[in-house]
Amino acid sequence: MRIALDAMGGDHAPSAIVEGAVEALNEYKDVEILLVGDESAVARELQNKKFPPLRAKILHASEAIGMGEPPLAAIRKKKNSSIRRAVDLVKTGEADAVVSAGHSGAMMALALIVLGASSGVDRPAIATIMPTFNKSFVLIDAGANVDCSPINLLQFALMGNAYAKHILGRPSPRVAILSIGEEESKGNELTKESFKLLQATDLNFIGNVEGKDIFAGLADVVVCDGFIGNIVLKTSEGLAEATIKMLKQEIAGLPTGRMGYLFIKKALRGFKKKTDYAEQGGSPLLGINGTCIIGHGRSTAKAIKNAIKMAAEFSGKKTHEIIRREINRNPLTVKGNSLAAG
Amino acid sequence: MRIALDAMGGDHAPSAIVEGAVEALNEYKDVEILLVGDESAVARELQNKKFPPLRAKILHASEAIGMGEPPLAAIRKKKNSSIRRAVDLVKTGEADAVVSAGHSGAMMALALIVLGASSGVDRPAIATIMPTFNKSFVLIDAGANVDCSPINLLQFALMGNAYAKHILGRPSPRVAILSIGEEESKGNELTKESFKLLQATDLNFIGNVEGKDIFAGLADVVVCDGFIGNIVLKTSEGLAEATIKMLKQEIAGLPTGRMGYLFIKKALRGFKKKTDYAEQGGSPLLGINGTCIIGHGRSTAKAIKNAIKMAAEFSGKKTHEIIRREINRNPLTVKGNSLAAG
Repeated sequence: MRIALDAMGGDHAPSAIVEGAVEALNEYKDVEILLVGDESAVARELQNKKFPPLRAKILHASEAIGMGEPPLAAIRKKKNSSIRRAVDLVKTGEADAVVSAGHSGAMMALALIVLGASSGVDRPAIATIMPTFNKSFVLIDAGANVDCSPINLLQFALMGNAYAKHILGRPSPRVAILSIGEEESKGNELTKESFKLLQATDLNFIGNVEGKDIFAGLADVVVCDGFIGNIVLKTSEGLAEATIKMLKQEIAGLPTGRMGYLFIKKALRGFKKKTDYAEQGGSPLLGINGTCIIGHGRSTAKAIKNAIKMAAEFSGKKTHEIIRREINRNPLTVKGNSLAAG
Repeated sequence: MRIALDAMGGDHAPSAIVEGAVEALNEYKDVEILLVGDESAVARELQNKKFPPLRAKILHASEAIGMGEPPLAAIRKKKNSSIRRAVDLVKTGEADAVVSAGHSGAMMALALIVLGASSGVDRPAIATIMPTFNKSFVLIDAGANVDCSPINLLQFALMGNAYAKHILGRPSPRVAILSIGEEESKGNELTKESFKLLQATDLNFIGNVEGKDIFAGLADVVVCDGFIGNIVLKTSEGLAEATIKMLKQEIAGLPTGRMGYLFIKKALRGFKKKTDYAEQGGSPLLGINGTCIIGHGRSTAKAIKNAIKMAAEFSGKKTHEIIRREINRNPLTVKGNSLAAG
């Protein structure tokens, strides 16, 4: 499995990225990594590190797209950016998958431009695994598309279903729409229309779920537009952090607090591990002709290592081909597409 | 201060509602409560309870609107529902404010039909106080309007600003739009248009905030449409509960867990108190000619007591008149309204 890794993308690039690549090379024996970025900077990071040299290669890219740049303008201007070169490697077949913790907007745009959307998919979507206290679920779209149509949500549901089934191994994923009430009549125009479309599929569609229920593990796939999805994702991150902070504050304020804290330190660590984005590493962009994993901007070496693992798994299972088949298998989607086009 | 209380509304009505009324009567000496509902059921709940009888009165209403009923049909059919009679009392001047933990859709519709929107307000909105680890913030709209225009969001901002200033005592509330990136260019069509409108006001508009930052206390007022607001609210509730559950699970799995748990039990209690909706009691519906407090469906006696306290404070400060003035003071809003009407 050859993974193209954008060595210049992310808040801690290139050091954390290269470090993550080294960890992945040592841990996963069937992975080759193409480190794309400033050759001398990457080589410097690799110095004195132990890893199997035959499975690592540096590919020079003279430019890097910064986190604050407008994505389309940056793509046009920087023809030799590390992220573009990395995506190109998938197009040419030199790599099986691409991983970047850099500018996610640029990554999405490049994936669409260079690799193209799968046949039958109008809009690729980001699928993110969210932990709950028992089972995780797939949140789709977690931020690729801010304004969506019901057809888009239908396709997100089909892609999320394929993810839950083939990657997470859930035989009959429970698919739900994120809304403000369980009844079909509750929601905004988008969710109400999407409800009707999903009802007509052969998915295990369980209806609407409310925000309060998603973390109770009621659904395997939670479908929403990318604006809502991103807000839910970020709110959850922020709230989990704030919760820990508030709890520590409360504990510190107690006479027995210091002692109590020592006792539960491990529990906090276990909780952090369960909710840590770095354990997932990244989120796949589904509905693309190829495997693209988008890493968190704050990615640490561990996050990168896990993103590489995810890329290898998605690519190994040919997930993008499964998704293409799933989307085109469903007669309603074909009907939906012609509606969308008309 | 006379508060009309829907005695039949909420999952634990009438017992928790009446119990909350009794607690409020004993705690707040300037409050009179009109208990609206089934006379014999309410009287039964009041039996053997100690409270100042001169400040409590039962007003009979023969019907109650159930949580699952479609609001508009229920309002039409049940002309003598407890919630309608309670709202009517504000209209006739027999009560200064109304509190219901019943059907929030019915409450909103009745508030609009019976009391009417404030002049200059196109859509009333629910404002909810959200705790953070340092300061709380106002989330508006928390669920009254699922599909919104930029003008609506502008008005939510002005109402939320008035709330933060006059009720929470923040001299220059930091107002933000909930979006998926800090830059003006990040968001959906609604937030991008709203951004321009808010920028042109004299509010202390700090731009967009992301989900991850709201619980860090970066803003005093967070503006969004009611669909997003409700999802953020419910997700936060669900996540806070799940977090505690996950932590307890982690603690239980440790050899030192049982001991640790004993030590931090109080901290968990302190945390729960800070994040407990019952501490707020309810959320005001802003932009109405009158004071309406919407309680949580799950309201306990404590929640009802606090909702009554909130109703008395809002009414005592004539918040709805302050809001009307604030909305009409801003030249942009007047322009906005004529745009919306044209």
